Amino acid sequence: MIITPEIIGYLAATLTTSSFLPQAILTIKTKDTDSLSLGMYSLFTSGVFCWLVYGIYIANNAIIFANAITFMLAASILTCKIYNTVFKKR
Amino acid sequence: MIITPEIIGYLAATLTTSSFLPQAILTIKTKDTDSLSLGMYSLFTSGVFCWLVYGIYIANNAIIFANAITFMLAASILTCKIYNTVFKKR
Repeated sequence: MIITPEIIGYLAATLTTSSFLPQAILTIKTKDTDSLSLGMYSLFTSGVFCWLVYGIYIANNAIIFANAITFMLAASILTCKIYNTVFKKR
Repeated sequence: MIITPEIIGYLAATLTTSSFLPQAILTIKTKDTDSLSLGMYSLFTSGVFCWLVYGIYIANNAIIFANAITFMLAASILTCKIYNTVFKKR
């Protein structure tokens, strides 16, 4: 099997996109966001939204697809964090 | 000011790369990793490493630079999480 740059790129995209799934499941299940950084999820969710806009701009389906999934996962984690920060003062 | 796809792409890259800095600072300062997912940081750190290899393969300095920074930040968070999981049973 020949490992081409394309295979490494697809592997990289699959790993970084899917990584937010276990975090979103953990956060939604436990509602615990104490050790999550509000700054990180604010910047990251905004950044992924920009990647999504960029993908739409340049009409690249791979960028649109990967970042649409990541955006939903990151936004759900951010929503839990904001809820806890505002309503639970932690 | 004209917003080109390139500007949105650079903004996206800056936001997603810099987002791991506040999380790394919080994690290193508090040592609290209870609400961080081990699965997420294992997959994410591996994925960013693949992006780094991909960047080196295709000789793209922007991809190398962004992912080298993100790798260091994500790996430091993962190290704290593994340490707590192994030694503190939490």
